[in-house]
Amino acid sequence: MNFRFEVIKECPQTGARLGRLTTPHGVADTPVFMPVGTQATVKTMTPDEVAGLGARIILSNTYHLYLRPGADIIQEAGGLHRFMNWPGIILTDSGGFQVFSLGELRKIEEEGVTFRSHLDGSTHFLSPEKSIQIQMSLGADIIMAFDECTPYPCSYEYAKASLERTTRWARRCQAVHTRSDQALFGIVQGGVFPKLREQSAHELVELDFPGYGIGGLSVGEPKPLMYEMLECTVPLLPQHRPRYLMGVGSPDCLVEGVSRGIDMFDCVLPTRIARNGTAMTSRGKLVIRNAIYARDFQPIDPECSCYTCQNYTRAYIRHLLKANEVLALRLMTTHNLFYLLNLMQQMRDALNENRFPAFRKNFWEQYSMDTKTKKEA
Amino acid sequence: MNFRFEVIKECPQTGARLGRLTTPHGVADTPVFMPVGTQATVKTMTPDEVAGLGARIILSNTYHLYLRPGADIIQEAGGLHRFMNWPGIILTDSGGFQVFSLGELRKIEEEGVTFRSHLDGSTHFLSPEKSIQIQMSLGADIIMAFDECTPYPCSYEYAKASLERTTRWARRCQAVHTRSDQALFGIVQGGVFPKLREQSAHELVELDFPGYGIGGLSVGEPKPLMYEMLECTVPLLPQHRPRYLMGVGSPDCLVEGVSRGIDMFDCVLPTRIARNGTAMTSRGKLVIRNAIYARDFQPIDPECSCYTCQNYTRAYIRHLLKANEVLALRLMTTHNLFYLLNLMQQMRDALNENRFPAFRKNFWEQYSMDTKTKKEA
Repeated sequence: MNFRFEVIKECPQTGARLGRLTTPHGVADTPVFMPVGTQATVKTMTPDEVAGLGARIILSNTYHLYLRPGADIIQEAGGLHRFMNWPGIILTDSGGFQVFSLGELRKIEEEGVTFRSHLDGSTHFLSPEKSIQIQMSLGADIIMAFDECTPYPCSYEYAKASLERTTRWARRCQAVHTRSDQALFGIVQGGVFPKLREQSAHELVELDFPGYGIGGLSVGEPKPLMYEMLECTVPLLPQHRPRYLMGVGSPDCLVEGVSRGIDMFDCVLPTRIARNGTAMTSRGKLVIRNAIYARDFQPIDPECSCYTCQNYTRAYIRHLLKANEVLALRLMTTHNLFYLLNLMQQMRDALNENRFPAFRKNFWEQYSMDTKTKKEA
Repeated sequence: MNFRFEVIKECPQTGARLGRLTTPHGVADTPVFMPVGTQATVKTMTPDEVAGLGARIILSNTYHLYLRPGADIIQEAGGLHRFMNWPGIILTDSGGFQVFSLGELRKIEEEGVTFRSHLDGSTHFLSPEKSIQIQMSLGADIIMAFDECTPYPCSYEYAKASLERTTRWARRCQAVHTRSDQALFGIVQGGVFPKLREQSAHELVELDFPGYGIGGLSVGEPKPLMYEMLECTVPLLPQHRPRYLMGVGSPDCLVEGVSRGIDMFDCVLPTRIARNGTAMTSRGKLVIRNAIYARDFQPIDPECSCYTCQNYTRAYIRHLLKANEVLALRLMTTHNLFYLLNLMQQMRDALNENRFPAFRKNFWEQYSMDTKTKKEA
């Protein structure tokens, strides 16, 4: 097995921990944030740039790559790492989340999910077996079991039936997964019901996965409820296996997730809001698109040391955004990814230096959940 | 005067020459190709990348910057170089070409041109005086006189009246231009009529500009006609002043323009066709978007040493193009600009080593005017 996870240090006052993930494509220190490269590219960035910002793992989407360019082409290219020129670690999701998000375009049965492509309306079928086969073709270092991500809100009965099917599907995924250079993670579901989260965790831990995703959160429920689910789920997962909170990437949720023992995160948030013209900073969000920045010749964040903040003003970036220039998307994405990856580095440093609780307190003293106006910024 | 141009070497067999342009923002060896940064950005690229590809001068558009973000904001930022973070040389056009291209949205009179913005339909007025004032605010190293670019075809009578007005406008431009750190170039017009090109050249040379644009070409006329116009115009321009063939950027026209004594070129062609998925190579164009490249795991040009060709396959770039990913635009732009800037470097090397005619012959032996299909490529 080419996959290893070590817990290096634990915070005595919180659930936070410092760890290290070893894979065939390198090592990542945890807690780690994984930028999303949906279509075999972290939008607007070269792989060199993504690595230069400190990213060690990226996530790519099985659903999207299966539809375009097709898993066969990526396999012919020598796998996803070579196809996209990313020498670091890759995690692929199972496609489950995307096909369940298709709403009326999909039909769930015990065998799998029939769905229609968002690209051309063509009909496809995805099952645990097929998802794993595709993920084996893509060749990521970490792959995910095919699960159902239940929506919020969702009835107790539906969430229970669904998590039980997710367990059966997880078993089917294990049965067909044969690549020893890939780690297959299970995914805990159970909606917002502590009892169901417990049931799901117990069933999956019994299957002994090398790592566990926590799915079905950050789908619309209030944040305190998400934190409660982490508090009842994480303690049931094996101490020496990585825990991956799926689809979560706002700065506050990263800090609170780490505090509750999460090791891995992914989210389109930093890159998506970047392209909409919103910057992440240690004080909260700045909507650089706003007219108040038209003559503001400061960097996005005067304290930031990213390439964007070292070289460009808010006024220039706003101009590029208004003019629909690609460089705007690049500069914004660079800044937001730098900010989030740097936040993770700061958490790892704090854990390493036994001062994580002080770091967390300080984070909350500075951070505002509201979008900042110019005066405050 | 901070502007100097030296002719270093002349090719005895052709009109080609090696030169050097010295400006307040550095030195450029000529013949030189200037990438276009219409809206204060060379589309998809950072300034560092543009410089890294070997560009020393970029062109930016007065019309576009005047409308958005406005010359006042760029002046407040400390000028265009600082606004866009480009430390190299900048040339701005006069805005004339863009307003004349507006067709029914503009009205030409002796005083100037009334036009409606392509962005919001608002009414504006551009005159020789106003164009120079805007260009002084922007602060480029080389600025252009406000001229009328006549279309093709165009009657002798119209072309004659127009070039005479262009001369009167050139005089008005000189009268208001006061920045000693900027060189103001005149622009030779006269359509496709040798007699009118001659008249225009004579009138403008009398005004003693530090450099001369040749305008109104590459507007739809056959290439041999353009070459004929160069052959009758260039000999009338002062030997020790740079000659700038405006809006020309196809590889064959660069080679033939240099052969006829042109020192400077600009064109959106390499960056625009890049974004449409067409690559420039020494053998001609490749339409990377085509389905024949879906499983082609070679670089765009196996002999090219650009970042794109060193790291990515045709199949991957085609996937990114089909998926509308920004990285495709970057990789294609990088390749095309590298190709053109490298072609200019090769011409300068050939001139320096007294082998330009052989270079030109070799270029034409390899180059095809047709778009290549896979087999040929």
